[in-house]
Amino acid sequence: MNSLTIALDVMGGDKGPLVTLTAAIFAVKKVPNLHLLLCGDEKIITETLLAHQISQHNQLTLIPTTEVVAMDEKPSSALRTKRNSSMRKAIDLVEQGKAQACVSAGNTGALFAMAHCILKTLPGVERPALISSLPTHDENKHVFMLDLGANVFCEANILYQFGLMGSVMAEQVDGITKPRVALLNMGEEDIKGSDHIKLAATKLSDNDQINYVGFIEGNDIFTNKTDVIVCDGFVGNVALKTCEGVAQLVYRKLHKFLSEHFFARIIGKILAPALKKLFKSMNPDQYNGASLIGLRGIVVKSHGNAGSKAFEAAIFEAMKEVENQVPEKIKLALEQGLIEQPLTE
Amino acid sequence: MNSLTIALDVMGGDKGPLVTLTAAIFAVKKVPNLHLLLCGDEKIITETLLAHQISQHNQLTLIPTTEVVAMDEKPSSALRTKRNSSMRKAIDLVEQGKAQACVSAGNTGALFAMAHCILKTLPGVERPALISSLPTHDENKHVFMLDLGANVFCEANILYQFGLMGSVMAEQVDGITKPRVALLNMGEEDIKGSDHIKLAATKLSDNDQINYVGFIEGNDIFTNKTDVIVCDGFVGNVALKTCEGVAQLVYRKLHKFLSEHFFARIIGKILAPALKKLFKSMNPDQYNGASLIGLRGIVVKSHGNAGSKAFEAAIFEAMKEVENQVPEKIKLALEQGLIEQPLTE
Repeated sequence: MNSLTIALDVMGGDKGPLVTLTAAIFAVKKVPNLHLLLCGDEKIITETLLAHQISQHNQLTLIPTTEVVAMDEKPSSALRTKRNSSMRKAIDLVEQGKAQACVSAGNTGALFAMAHCILKTLPGVERPALISSLPTHDENKHVFMLDLGANVFCEANILYQFGLMGSVMAEQVDGITKPRVALLNMGEEDIKGSDHIKLAATKLSDNDQINYVGFIEGNDIFTNKTDVIVCDGFVGNVALKTCEGVAQLVYRKLHKFLSEHFFARIIGKILAPALKKLFKSMNPDQYNGASLIGLRGIVVKSHGNAGSKAFEAAIFEAMKEVENQVPEKIKLALEQGLIEQPLTE
Repeated sequence: MNSLTIALDVMGGDKGPLVTLTAAIFAVKKVPNLHLLLCGDEKIITETLLAHQISQHNQLTLIPTTEVVAMDEKPSSALRTKRNSSMRKAIDLVEQGKAQACVSAGNTGALFAMAHCILKTLPGVERPALISSLPTHDENKHVFMLDLGANVFCEANILYQFGLMGSVMAEQVDGITKPRVALLNMGEEDIKGSDHIKLAATKLSDNDQINYVGFIEGNDIFTNKTDVIVCDGFVGNVALKTCEGVAQLVYRKLHKFLSEHFFARIIGKILAPALKKLFKSMNPDQYNGASLIGLRGIVVKSHGNAGSKAFEAAIFEAMKEVENQVPEKIKLALEQGLIEQPLTE
């Protein structure tokens, strides 16, 4: 069994070390060959570990840092000034080959800027993308969606590359043969949408390596019509956050409804834990990690207010990408894609 | 009591006259001063009304047309070639002053193109917008969102005008004093988003007539933080359709969950109709009409697969806009807005 080394930005996220270290402790318990590099404030980490009755652990290594990137910090300023931050250190360790991946629940913009600048994109990749999986009607299948907010606006060529990269993720991480790739649009008809989306559609359908299935609309994100959904970061971010908003709204309405009806009130109490679980699974942003792909290294982003289970899931997501050599596979797909389809507009 | 005359595109929508005429019959029963102009195929309308045992009705007038705009027809082609269609006729009647508003469940793109071309925009309005109301956590309040798909991409100036128009809708239709107006963005911080959104934010906050409250994210669409949400048509359409998709997904998961648990199965059967109603209210696109605003006339769009109740709601929405003179009020607000805030970029 090969050893797996992953660097954690311990200080990142709304709850910081309380969440990240709890997740780290559970993760190493479950995976004997996992080694975690804990980047963050020495005193806080030591004390938090001691509270868990850990003074030394052969799977946990402390990497002391002195700075923290604030959740509302401007990415450009974090990149310029926070050279000794826990986030920066975790990325540096990947760049130096000392870690195979890094995980952070910190400021998304700063993480993206640092990862982009330090790790650099793979040859042929113009922009990295934030990708995550969402639930579908079929309980055993999910759908990958990208970009979820790393890039505000994306030209046709970038959307085309996202299609290639998403296809590799679905193939490597989920083991899907010839994953179906769709573009998110405001209509299914060919005539709908902006010029750059139409051009991206042409590029994707011209590439024999890609199983491009056409446009889909927002209401079909979850209907298992596709394995990969491609859109620009603005649209993806709004769609993802809207999912979260609708799930919350339905949960509240249902809760109110269950408390107002006599029979429902009784059953509501019995079912409460199971219902809560159901709605948690509907909140993809919060309960899965998202990955920055297209870089020369693996970077997994956990939600800012993730709990320890969600952060642990992000660590496992990083492990999966290391084991499946996602960056190498994306590089390969792009090289082949570049030959088949010149990347010019 | 003043008489209200509204033109209906009887042939529009997935189910056509079956739905639209049933809605028309119910609407005139409820509102004695409502007069409906039924644009569509003479034979089909006569026969459908006869099936309802109506051979003549002083509130219903047949306006025979010979063509129908197909649901998947290209807007430009519909505009050029379908001059004697039921949709075109309904809009023509508004333009000629013979109807105070028109309602259609037909092809959105074609309706938009025809309405834009025939009715023209109000002075100062660059682009009309599709607006609808969505539910919020507070049962007695909803939120207006625009644009929902009439315009793929919108410059700052157009978003600014949408803010003004949305504010008038919330004020006139819902009677809200100083409606809160927000821009949909991928973050709440001022630094997030594209340049045109930041510029639109400056324009909106510089106008004293507008109660601009800043950026909101997708998860806050439903939390009653604002009365009006402004975005471009692509983003608005994806967000709206995503709502529909999430509601369907939750409904399915809940249904499955209720059928799998013994207690829940019993209670699920008792609660089924009420649950269905709850989820219908979560499907704003389908159960409210949307309006095309910024035009010199009132055009209400019902969902393509609307049932008769939804189409009836769209007729009542049109009545409300006529009674509150929405286009006149938008014109006034824009005239004042133009003086306070020169519309240049």
